[in-house]
Amino acid sequence: MPLIFWLVPVSAVLALLFAYGFFRQMMRQDEGTEMMRRIAEHVRKGASAYLRQQYKVVIVVFFVITIIFSILAYGLGVQNPWVPFAFISGGFFSGLAGFFGMKAATYASGRVANACRKSLDGGLRLAFRSGAVMGLVVVGLVLVDISVWFIILNQFIPETADGYKLMTITAVMLTFGMGASTQALFARVGGGIYTKAADVGADLVGKVEAGIPEDDPRNPATIADNVGDNVGDVAGMGADLFESFAASILATALLGAAAFMGADPATEQLFGLDVQTNAVIAPMLIAAVGTLLSIAGVFMVRTREGATQKQLLHSLGTGVNVSAFLIVIFSFLILYYLQLPNFVGIWGAIVIGLLAGIGIGQSTEYFTASAYKPTQRIAASSQTGPATVIISGVGTGLTSAAVPLGIIVVAITLAFLFATGFNFHVDYLNFGLYGIGVAAVGMLSTLGITLATDAYGPIADNAGGNAEMCGLGPEVRSRTDALDALGNTTAATGKGFAIGSAALTALALLASYFEEVRMMLVKFLDLPKGDPKRLINGLDAQDAQFVDFIHHYEIHLMNPMVIVGIFLGVMAVFLFSGITMNAVGRAAQKMVDEVRRQFKTIDGILEGEAEPDYARCVEISTKGAQREMMVPSLVALLIPVIVGLIFGVAGVTGLLIGTISSGFALAIFMANAGGAWDNAKKYVEEGHFGGKGSEGHKATIIGDTVGDPFKDTSGPSLNILIKLMVMASVVTVGIAVSYSLLGPSL
Amino acid sequence: MPLIFWLVPVSAVLALLFAYGFFRQMMRQDEGTEMMRRIAEHVRKGASAYLRQQYKVVIVVFFVITIIFSILAYGLGVQNPWVPFAFISGGFFSGLAGFFGMKAATYASGRVANACRKSLDGGLRLAFRSGAVMGLVVVGLVLVDISVWFIILNQFIPETADGYKLMTITAVMLTFGMGASTQALFARVGGGIYTKAADVGADLVGKVEAGIPEDDPRNPATIADNVGDNVGDVAGMGADLFESFAASILATALLGAAAFMGADPATEQLFGLDVQTNAVIAPMLIAAVGTLLSIAGVFMVRTREGATQKQLLHSLGTGVNVSAFLIVIFSFLILYYLQLPNFVGIWGAIVIGLLAGIGIGQSTEYFTASAYKPTQRIAASSQTGPATVIISGVGTGLTSAAVPLGIIVVAITLAFLFATGFNFHVDYLNFGLYGIGVAAVGMLSTLGITLATDAYGPIADNAGGNAEMCGLGPEVRSRTDALDALGNTTAATGKGFAIGSAALTALALLASYFEEVRMMLVKFLDLPKGDPKRLINGLDAQDAQFVDFIHHYEIHLMNPMVIVGIFLGVMAVFLFSGITMNAVGRAAQKMVDEVRRQFKTIDGILEGEAEPDYARCVEISTKGAQREMMVPSLVALLIPVIVGLIFGVAGVTGLLIGTISSGFALAIFMANAGGAWDNAKKYVEEGHFGGKGSEGHKATIIGDTVGDPFKDTSGPSLNILIKLMVMASVVTVGIAVSYSLLGPSL
Repeated sequence: MPLIFWLVPVSAVLALLFAYGFFRQMMRQDEGTEMMRRIAEHVRKGASAYLRQQYKVVIVVFFVITIIFSILAYGLGVQNPWVPFAFISGGFFSGLAGFFGMKAATYASGRVANACRKSLDGGLRLAFRSGAVMGLVVVGLVLVDISVWFIILNQFIPETADGYKLMTITAVMLTFGMGASTQALFARVGGGIYTKAADVGADLVGKVEAGIPEDDPRNPATIADNVGDNVGDVAGMGADLFESFAASILATALLGAAAFMGADPATEQLFGLDVQTNAVIAPMLIAAVGTLLSIAGVFMVRTREGATQKQLLHSLGTGVNVSAFLIVIFSFLILYYLQLPNFVGIWGAIVIGLLAGIGIGQSTEYFTASAYKPTQRIAASSQTGPATVIISGVGTGLTSAAVPLGIIVVAITLAFLFATGFNFHVDYLNFGLYGIGVAAVGMLSTLGITLATDAYGPIADNAGGNAEMCGLGPEVRSRTDALDALGNTTAATGKGFAIGSAALTALALLASYFEEVRMMLVKFLDLPKGDPKRLINGLDAQDAQFVDFIHHYEIHLMNPMVIVGIFLGVMAVFLFSGITMNAVGRAAQKMVDEVRRQFKTIDGILEGEAEPDYARCVEISTKGAQREMMVPSLVALLIPVIVGLIFGVAGVTGLLIGTISSGFALAIFMANAGGAWDNAKKYVEEGHFGGKGSEGHKATIIGDTVGDPFKDTSGPSLNILIKLMVMASVVTVGIAVSYSLLGPSL
Repeated sequence: MPLIFWLVPVSAVLALLFAYGFFRQMMRQDEGTEMMRRIAEHVRKGASAYLRQQYKVVIVVFFVITIIFSILAYGLGVQNPWVPFAFISGGFFSGLAGFFGMKAATYASGRVANACRKSLDGGLRLAFRSGAVMGLVVVGLVLVDISVWFIILNQFIPETADGYKLMTITAVMLTFGMGASTQALFARVGGGIYTKAADVGADLVGKVEAGIPEDDPRNPATIADNVGDNVGDVAGMGADLFESFAASILATALLGAAAFMGADPATEQLFGLDVQTNAVIAPMLIAAVGTLLSIAGVFMVRTREGATQKQLLHSLGTGVNVSAFLIVIFSFLILYYLQLPNFVGIWGAIVIGLLAGIGIGQSTEYFTASAYKPTQRIAASSQTGPATVIISGVGTGLTSAAVPLGIIVVAITLAFLFATGFNFHVDYLNFGLYGIGVAAVGMLSTLGITLATDAYGPIADNAGGNAEMCGLGPEVRSRTDALDALGNTTAATGKGFAIGSAALTALALLASYFEEVRMMLVKFLDLPKGDPKRLINGLDAQDAQFVDFIHHYEIHLMNPMVIVGIFLGVMAVFLFSGITMNAVGRAAQKMVDEVRRQFKTIDGILEGEAEPDYARCVEISTKGAQREMMVPSLVALLIPVIVGLIFGVAGVTGLLIGTISSGFALAIFMANAGGAWDNAKKYVEEGHFGGKGSEGHKATIIGDTVGDPFKDTSGPSLNILIKLMVMASVVTVGIAVSYSLLGPSL
């Protein structure tokens, strides 16, 4: 193990220590008045109740999947015996990160509201550092898990001369991502349904029927709504990016092991084990350095009293941008130190990934912020009623999907070209796939601080809610409002970033799927692996295996099974988002019924004399979310396995690319349409096109409500779908390879 | 030329003669009162004005494309010299069909209203036979064009021993489809924007602001609205299915020429020229027989006075179903007569295609008719306001896309398996692709009568509008209402059928794209074509060429250019539908302004004393449609060429499958969501959930307005996009093969 590898565990431990430090610092702050304490307590209890319930379901699912993996590994022998354990560890660490992150967020919000009684800077710093707990715990735990497994497997898996040891190690570690994926599925889908059922339900009865403002303590669903912000936007987003971070690093490690196992096509010289090891640890090191830079970035976030919205945004931006800029420099140094062949090209791929992330964030901002034309046009269409608001929002959302798709297309093409030294030939394929993986790692490298800005949003939002419910003074409200508005901006770009990184991660996972199948082929067809330099028809062994693979499985576009697979992938995406969309409607309906019941049966509730039964609403949203997430989860987990059983590898590859491409587009469409509707409403509230209370305002409120499940449930759930389907295919590859009905038999 | 081929021109001429007969018969009917005559005249003039304007644009575009084709053919030599002429003829015949169909429809509607003054049966028969003019003209002109070209090219293209003559003939004839595609693009996109700009504009000012009913002669946009029904639903739908009918036959002919050119993999015997010829004319014969059966079916449609909605539906259904049942029998006889190898399997593919068409129609009905749960649930969600109506409509629409996708997946798989005799191996690929083409032909075989039921809808709708505007008695109105309601049902299933057949046709075209590239490869790489039986690595020449093709262009899913292409295909779909969606919004806004202006400046207009300036509204909608269709048209025409220039054949194949799969899903989503909203509104109007005038009703009206551009503009325009992109790729294949930047050079 090269010495520099130890940077990974060290940075992991540092990230966790700083997270603990920020947490302790936050806990030392005063929680404010008795009322503030009580409200915060309600939210905290609700969030814990939700998490407990979710973990119960998750444990059952993990139990079942672990048994399946054990059968595949020990019974059928189509999987490595380490796989079940790696799977469990990924799920466990992801769950732990969600637990800590949400604890920190729910402890923080009351304290942030209290800090805002004194100063804006104090509030911002406290909120941001509490968000940083989530950010650093996520990256820290991912790197801990990676380090520990890498060290263990390096000890236990026997050395081979041909470089297959590292292939095996990285393949096992990838299963760790499957655990994180499964955990994220429940956190994102369940959390997404929870938060919007509570939100839509609270609004429909509270705002519309009873005419009481948002975040009013008389509304029984208001605590559930606040819990939802934590459940969906902290725990859900965290689990989503935990998985992207882990999967991008692990997939790239596998792709590195594969690419640098054979011979250099230019010189026909073997790379050797050192080069291969360096290619495997390169993504880990980049992530480790990005983590250290994220910690440094967190300390850069501060502001001064009376800061404008723009200055606040600048404060956050400084931390993120400085980290991103420095990772460009440091990743060059790392790659130089590792002396990978064509390291400048690989470094180019990292930069491309970073730029793509920024570009997607910018395009999200353009299409959703009220400072730009698209959202203003949606606001303008409110003059002809809600129908035109919806039409123009859908039109804008659909159009907006083209930009991130274009960015990803350019990013893949350039990352591939850079990493292959501008060579599209099949001999260089492995290097290009590694380049795509490295680009994903580059995009996610500074996740520690990016995620901190994401988790900051719901904390500020809840702080505002707390201040509102406790009737704090107007100067406090104006401070929490400023923090909350900032959170809305970061939430929109954060969503774009989450989707973009999910797509790139999924593509890296798809590439590692190819490598896994190739390894299976080597195993079952007994292809030459002893001497990677042995030439077959002018190709080295590895390239020949790839050609064999393409042939054997006919994963080309003339094979109808591939086309069928692509259709099924698109089908899964539409089905999944349709189901989650309808799930919100059903769960919200239950919430509406409950709030109506409480208004009717609890005397004095609307006069503020009796306390509503908050816990009952939390429970209803929790149960609704748990029930509704079963069907979409089964869709996501079973479709890849069923397609593999019927159509084999060709069908599965088609399925995956169909899911990734259309899922990415639909997710962007939904997130951007939802964000634009939200901000069009705010734009009207600022006094444009009739202002608050006008008919136009009512039209935009309808748009905003429609946008809620778009941007917070169905859209983000698609991130999980596209990664999970690939992950599930990767870990069940043995089924598609060995037990397919229509596919070629081995 | 085998004698049986002459069935094709004969049935074509018969179809045209019967169309002419139905037209004369209709023209002999009385147009009714002076007022009825005048209203019909307005609509007729408006429709003609629109068509004239559209043909002006189309002529310019055809001129430009013809020049490009001539350069490719005569200058660069990458295309056959016949191509420009075939292209022009396709566009010309499609335009002619649209012209006749719309003429018949606009002459008929007033006469149908008048016939309804006497009896329901008279009205139904007249409306249906006038619709049949469109249906029979479309299939007749397609078959005329095919017959003439086949006879001419058979004369002029020199005989070869190896079967390349028929490949060349069918490849040239396919360009005829490109002409039809281009014409359809303008008819469907322009017509779609026109009809919804007029509809939404008329509703927003007339119904909402001025409070006058629909189809009120005081509304200046009401004539434009009625014109729109003809422009969008008669001419647009006709051009769309003209293209599907032509392209499915021609693509299948090409696939037949390719499949039966080599040797039978089972016996290794050459097929011979007779078999190849029979495979080429088989799809033409099936279409010809289907056309004869359609004529017979038209005569079966009749009803009796006081028939219920169900009985009316049954009357139409009888004609369609009997034709469909008989084609199952006759196509078996034809294939038996042609003695194609595995003719039972090929017949199976035809049946699969027919069943898939019926299945997609049924699923459309389930998801959009108010007799079933999904639409009722949308209606129920009106109780919590318009936002939940939109959310549940989107949820239902997204979910509903899964069913037709599933049907197409099963259909492709079975058609392929049947046509190959259950053999997925690459040697049998050609036969499987032929099977997919044959399934498309089967689905479309009885288009004559299916299209008659589609064109019937707007005729009945306009007859209702005429009766309303002229204040005819209640028993007349109830008859036209019954006919109109029937038209709404057929419109929904008709849309599903149009999308499904477009998807299957596009897949057949994609298969012929592969064959075209293979031919290019044979030409440029000088692959062995003289002796099809020559074996290369155990494959016959043709299979070897395919393997070479897959290799040479790397159209496998590990090639990032393929993946990039798929992403770009999805991007094109989202971009195109976003642009068309926004186009309706903008064009409707112009209409709103104009109607408001007329209400303000023309004295006595709302009192019914002064006639509004109908022509001005028609002109505004026409100009708006023409302007707005330019950008999406350029997207559709240029993207395949640009992708070909940059990413070559691999990128283009990815592009096409990405477009077809995601475009199909999005089109179904939009059509079904739109149809369900429409019928949810009608369901509430029937007295459920508060009935007409309630808050719930208002909520469903908003849903219905949102659904208008969904189901009548963006959704159907996607049918064109998916076919046109493949067509454009097929006819510019030389560019991707020879002049690609990143693709392999020849």
